Amino acid sequence: MYKVDLNSDLGESFGVYMIGQDEEILKVVTSANIACGFHAGDPDVMWKTVKMAVENNVGIGAHPGFPDLQGFGRRDMRVSPKEVYNMMVYQIGALNAFTELHGGRLNHVKPHGALYNMASACKELAEAVAESIYHLNPRLILFGLAGSELVKAGRKLGLYVAEEVFADRTYQRDGTLTPRSFPNSMVKDPDEAVERVIKMIKEQEVETIDGTVIPIQADTICVHGDEPSALRFVRHLRASLHENGIYVEKVGG
Amino acid sequence: MYKVDLNSDLGESFGVYMIGQDEEILKVVTSANIACGFHAGDPDVMWKTVKMAVENNVGIGAHPGFPDLQGFGRRDMRVSPKEVYNMMVYQIGALNAFTELHGGRLNHVKPHGALYNMASACKELAEAVAESIYHLNPRLILFGLAGSELVKAGRKLGLYVAEEVFADRTYQRDGTLTPRSFPNSMVKDPDEAVERVIKMIKEQEVETIDGTVIPIQADTICVHGDEPSALRFVRHLRASLHENGIYVEKVGG
Amino acid sequence: MYKVDLNSDLGESFGVYMIGQDEEILKVVTSANIACGFHAGDPDVMWKTVKMAVENNVGIGAHPGFPDLQGFGRRDMRVSPKEVYNMMVYQIGALNAFTELHGGRLNHVKPHGALYNMASACKELAEAVAESIYHLNPRLILFGLAGSELVKAGRKLGLYVAEEVFADRTYQRDGTLTPRSFPNSMVKDPDEAVERVIKMIKEQEVETIDGTVIPIQADTICVHGDEPSALRFVRHLRASLHENGIYVEKVGG
Amino acid sequence: MYKVDLNSDLGESFGVYMIGQDEEILKVVTSANIACGFHAGDPDVMWKTVKMAVENNVGIGAHPGFPDLQGFGRRDMRVSPKEVYNMMVYQIGALNAFTELHGGRLNHVKPHGALYNMASACKELAEAVAESIYHLNPRLILFGLAGSELVKAGRKLGLYVAEEVFADRTYQRDGTLTPRSFPNSMVKDPDEAVERVIKMIKEQEVETIDGTVIPIQADTICVHGDEPSALRFVRHLRASLHENGIYVEKVGG
Repeated sequence: MYKVDLNSDLGESFGVYMIGQDEEILKVVTSANIACGFHAGDPDVMWKTVKMAVENNVGIGAHPGFPDLQGFGRRDMRVSPKEVYNMMVYQIGALNAFTELHGGRLNHVKPHGALYNMASACKELAEAVAESIYHLNPRLILFGLAGSELVKAGRKLGLYVAEEVFADRTYQRDGTLTPRSFPNSMVKDPDEAVERVIKMIKEQEVETIDGTVIPIQADTICVHGDEPSALRFVRHLRASLHENGIYVEKVGG
Repeated sequence: MYKVDLNSDLGESFGVYMIGQDEEILKVVTSANIACGFHAGDPDVMWKTVKMAVENNVGIGAHPGFPDLQGFGRRDMRVSPKEVYNMMVYQIGALNAFTELHGGRLNHVKPHGALYNMASACKELAEAVAESIYHLNPRLILFGLAGSELVKAGRKLGLYVAEEVFADRTYQRDGTLTPRSFPNSMVKDPDEAVERVIKMIKEQEVETIDGTVIPIQADTICVHGDEPSALRFVRHLRASLHENGIYVEKVGG
Repeated sequence: MYKVDLNSDLGESFGVYMIGQDEEILKVVTSANIACGFHAGDPDVMWKTVKMAVENNVGIGAHPGFPDLQGFGRRDMRVSPKEVYNMMVYQIGALNAFTELHGGRLNHVKPHGALYNMASACKELAEAVAESIYHLNPRLILFGLAGSELVKAGRKLGLYVAEEVFADRTYQRDGTLTPRSFPNSMVKDPDEAVERVIKMIKEQEVETIDGTVIPIQADTICVHGDEPSALRFVRHLRASLHENGIYVEKVGG
Repeated sequence: MYKVDLNSDLGESFGVYMIGQDEEILKVVTSANIACGFHAGDPDVMWKTVKMAVENNVGIGAHPGFPDLQGFGRRDMRVSPKEVYNMMVYQIGALNAFTELHGGRLNHVKPHGALYNMASACKELAEAVAESIYHLNPRLILFGLAGSELVKAGRKLGLYVAEEVFADRTYQRDGTLTPRSFPNSMVKDPDEAVERVIKMIKEQEVETIDGTVIPIQADTICVHGDEPSALRFVRHLRASLHENGIYVEKVGG
């Protein structure tokens, strides 16, 4: 039996600034990565988002990022492993409080944006991320880019790790995502995207931009819900997974 | 047998900015109120301060404040009870994570600065503060100004409450502190300050600025350690309490 | 000949967070109040907004607010006159730099949100606002609530002052706006709103919520463009003013 | 006749957090680089620091940095040239307002910390920095690391450039500073530091860590005043320069 998790970044509004269609996307995903106030989100947004996530019975995850609201946590910051460790602990702790408040249980942690990318590529930062999670609660699941340093660091520590793939992104020969600045970084055709995901799940491989086929493990698929078309794609993907005998459920669920 | 707690605000450094003599004050107090990153403190400072507090076996408290670093949380902000509730949850959750990480246990919560003052005087804000604590963990102890709305709100909910007094401040007839802008707001003579504290503990009353004597309950005394003279005063106070048969130990300890 | 200015708050996006329909509203107003990075806006947004304002030949104004991005500058903060003075200087200076860069000229200053409201009611804060503007450039025009302390403080210093009225808000007997929390705070019928504005301009009076008629001076009308209906109203208002022989042009223009 | 400027970073306090001995250092330097609120400083600190700088008749410079108060602007951030350009404009504009307010005139701009380092090494960022200054006011002087991309970019645009050297740092063969993480990054002996500076000024060369001698131009020397020993060194340096016939005056003065 094949199974996979669908995760999405939620709770990214801030103050009067509204982003995303959280209510809608919560009905189609199985895991929610909730912003923790550094790159997006604020205490009021967190309260509401966690509440909705609990009500929709999805897996609740902390989505910590760099302290860079203007850059939405997408700008690399040269921080030390110790700084990464502490900013993870802080944000996970804050989100966990809202989760317990609403009667939920924190299920996973997925670093956001530049922190995710840097920890995917850098062993020291990957270890700092993994240790912060492990030290707080060794039963938390680490979401990391499939095949990355983050996944390795988590596994080495004994964390349960969910390898993450992207339906709308292409891969390079070394298993990394093709940078967004490249013309062929995106999979634009929805049917092709679905087909690729199914292949990743069933055959555990993906074709890279140079035509090579590399192995990949797809425990969870990152999807977006910020635009109507994105939401339609997620529904389409979910239905296609079902039709292809792939069960959609939250990781560790 | 008389007993009292000595508490102090700690972990107020931020980035390269150093404040306080935390290592020294931790040796003489029994409870530490640790800043949570909104009005002061940052994740790295929190990591270090909680570690020191655990090592010194003092009661560990969250010290949440307004999101106003420039104003050090001392400027009133007209926030709603809901906003207060959520900023409390966020900050307590963050500090709790560091506490568990270091093998400690969160013992109390004391709102900081303008949040403390506003919640002392306003029933709605007091209830928001008390509820945030109670919902997170009903065994947490609320530190509030003796006789204030904060103390009443906590007690009404069923929280264990520690009524706080100030050794170096004078009181008005209604039990509130004389505002700092008033010439007679401070008790400048150390011996007089000690004497007043002992009277508050043993006789449960204090003389106000207009000569009236009012009842007061002194569960915990707020002391400061940011200057050498302040530190000397705390040592003198602690010795005097001991000589007068008053046992100094953390609240709930 | 009657004339009036139409002003709107612009440049309120921040990072990835988009707000408003600045391009559209710039075609119908004569003055733009541009956020300066404290309550909204960031350097990139300011660059773009000022550029568009210059291209549309509208009056360019700094719109400084409290350092409270989460609260969008709408939460009262108890700051000193000196702090208000300096936060005004800082923000006006920043916006002025972008204005000069784009070949424009700063025309006016309008405090935002809670800063506007507090300075309307409090003489000391009103003076701090007026002085900050006057000291920077005595030819800048101060936009303030019609009849308020802000208007008085500006005039006393010798600043050119534009008294501001609101098309969609009702007034109380003392000339202040009916607080938004009151059920009758808004003028919901567009035709009534237009009629009231015309009366304010031509007869210099307005009917308050208790039926009294009070004098009012309408140099500039605050309008909003954040929703399609708001934009439609502004177009309707502008056409109606024209039909009624009221010339729409920027203050000091 | 030889001459050189002595510059120091000032106005780095923030809110209740005090750093530096600005009053003392202002008596011995000829140029002040004043923090602009992003990596350090706030509007109140800027008001006071600019006032003191004007009173001491030193050259007033804006010292813009990354929006990273916790990291004091010392952490690299991967920002675009456009973002750098705008954050420069914003901060220079803010500081310029305080300078005009106090009757002074902005003389120079020196990027801070990681922004300085990144713009020294990266042509695109160097050009963004130089253009922001040139577009605001082509008579402003750019302070940049001697021999760096920043210096080249400024000169290419037609800006007056002051090449900056460091008395207490060693140099690598390519003219860059030896990173602080290296054991031999600092010149610890004050007499050696003075001797090296005099050689840089008079002979326009410096010995690198591998013994090579490279050409260098020393228009301005960066000195620090945050510790008593640092202040003593600056006084010693200034006296030594005088004794060696080197006139100390502000750049462009």
